[in-house]
Amino acid sequence: MPTIADIDAAALRLQGHVRRTPLLSSPFLDEIAGRRVFVKAECLQHTGSFKFRGAWSAVSALDPALRAKGVIAFSSGNHAQGVALAAKQHGIPAVIVMPADAPRLKIANTHAFGAEVVLYDRATEDRDAIGAHLASERGLTLIKPFDNEMVIAGQATAGLEISEQAAENGVTDADVLVCCGGGGLTSGIALALDARSPNLRARPVEPAGFDDVTRSLLSGKAERNTSLSGSLCDAIITPTPGQITLPIMQHHCGAGIVVTDEEALRAIALAWLRLKIVLEPGGAVSLAAALFHGEQITSRDVICVVSGGNVDPDIFIRALATLAE
Amino acid sequence: MPTIADIDAAALRLQGHVRRTPLLSSPFLDEIAGRRVFVKAECLQHTGSFKFRGAWSAVSALDPALRAKGVIAFSSGNHAQGVALAAKQHGIPAVIVMPADAPRLKIANTHAFGAEVVLYDRATEDRDAIGAHLASERGLTLIKPFDNEMVIAGQATAGLEISEQAAENGVTDADVLVCCGGGGLTSGIALALDARSPNLRARPVEPAGFDDVTRSLLSGKAERNTSLSGSLCDAIITPTPGQITLPIMQHHCGAGIVVTDEEALRAIALAWLRLKIVLEPGGAVSLAAALFHGEQITSRDVICVVSGGNVDPDIFIRALATLAE
Repeated sequence: MPTIADIDAAALRLQGHVRRTPLLSSPFLDEIAGRRVFVKAECLQHTGSFKFRGAWSAVSALDPALRAKGVIAFSSGNHAQGVALAAKQHGIPAVIVMPADAPRLKIANTHAFGAEVVLYDRATEDRDAIGAHLASERGLTLIKPFDNEMVIAGQATAGLEISEQAAENGVTDADVLVCCGGGGLTSGIALALDARSPNLRARPVEPAGFDDVTRSLLSGKAERNTSLSGSLCDAIITPTPGQITLPIMQHHCGAGIVVTDEEALRAIALAWLRLKIVLEPGGAVSLAAALFHGEQITSRDVICVVSGGNVDPDIFIRALATLAE
Repeated sequence: MPTIADIDAAALRLQGHVRRTPLLSSPFLDEIAGRRVFVKAECLQHTGSFKFRGAWSAVSALDPALRAKGVIAFSSGNHAQGVALAAKQHGIPAVIVMPADAPRLKIANTHAFGAEVVLYDRATEDRDAIGAHLASERGLTLIKPFDNEMVIAGQATAGLEISEQAAENGVTDADVLVCCGGGGLTSGIALALDARSPNLRARPVEPAGFDDVTRSLLSGKAERNTSLSGSLCDAIITPTPGQITLPIMQHHCGAGIVVTDEEALRAIALAWLRLKIVLEPGGAVSLAAALFHGEQITSRDVICVVSGGNVDPDIFIRALATLAE
């Protein structure tokens, strides 16, 4: 489990490379939620999601000789872009293994960030075997998306910023709602807040039907989702909590909150209208929880970490249509 | 003409009330522009536009006894919301005189920010007479949208931030493109940069057909637009440059750049895709100039002040459609 010293060290490595994202607010959102709502806009991070923090932290922490050989990641989404850009800026090779049916834009972006993209057929090929072969052949280091202490320490730097920004805004008692997939961001923020702002409590937010973390926190053991598709919140769909992240969340997080895809779309539209930021469904569930599930929140204020904005136009237009309802 | 001391004093009054907006960037935008592009995201300012800076500056600079009687403004747009919120946070009354056919959302927002909205019929009523009557009856102080030294000093605080953020990003030579209506933001930023970063040059950007400032800078006298409607960039359509702002721009600005509505829509779409921010057409013309009129820019880097994000969904959806072209 990363210590606060690991997190501070990650923050030092990230300085000048990672954006300090703003904490936004709107009286209109406060009115809907019935309390003050602050929004930590990680969609404004480089590559459009918080993932660049963890990627930079992990790549920058590698032994230089090992790092020079390059890194590899499995991802069709935000982690891919984070690792690709962090590797490019370190001047080292990156190989990203992606399913051949991943969205063309995400493949193009990962290419454009300088990575070598290796496509595989989900139906007939074994992703892990392809990755293991490439890694051993070239000496690449695998950067896992959340079960990696340096990745968690990197995501935790968002928590350090929240601690400072909450104090600047006079926030002394708040639940900090975090969009949660494997739990890297949630567990990192929980560790940072526990050390620096124990009056701020991290809580995971998940899409309905994919609430493995929420159920795991209730049952005390790692629960699995029965399905791995069928939600708009693709960025935060994972089969089960991480082996490193779950114990952290068990020790440091409040109860999970579950929201529907429809609520995530409404949160996207309200963030567009009131905050002028672009969110993807998986990056908006925390805001949806604050706006539409306030009865599960007891703190005076609430802070929502909106984690990413890499969304297709058709889904975004669907979200805007909810404003007319 | 406001001095740098006036601007520094405005910055002190604004501290803790106005958001320090981020300077964003994306390698994808750099590639389109052929140079590094930095985007000062004033759409993330309170009320969704830079106007809150000038409004706060003007309201906070009033003599307290006079201020307590309240303020009045004529505006159907971003200035209305800025003045309404600044007045509300000072605990004083605000009257906003708006045309009865203004967009319902803007009327509702101005109400929600606590202002008294007085509607008038554009065809049959005289806005100035209504305003003058109300002002004298109640002792209200008129806050003009740009021809007001304290408003200009407030907008100039965006220039102070740009000066600091440019240095943080290693920018030593850049044109600073500013969306320009009456010239309050452009002239304010020009004054701040001239005092603090003379290597950064402010330049106004206007929509085609409404390029009164660009033509005025060329001819040396105040030129007028022949029309006052027919552009998507409603936020920056004014008949002629301000009497205070034009001389400032003549002394401190580089040549203007003119963009089409279609280019503004494409800039909105690219800001959505690459920066995850929401722009209105009038707030996107500076970015459009950097992306599509690079031949008129000779500096190594370029900084675009994107000034607002209060846009209707239908226009935004039209902008997103340009991504498929």
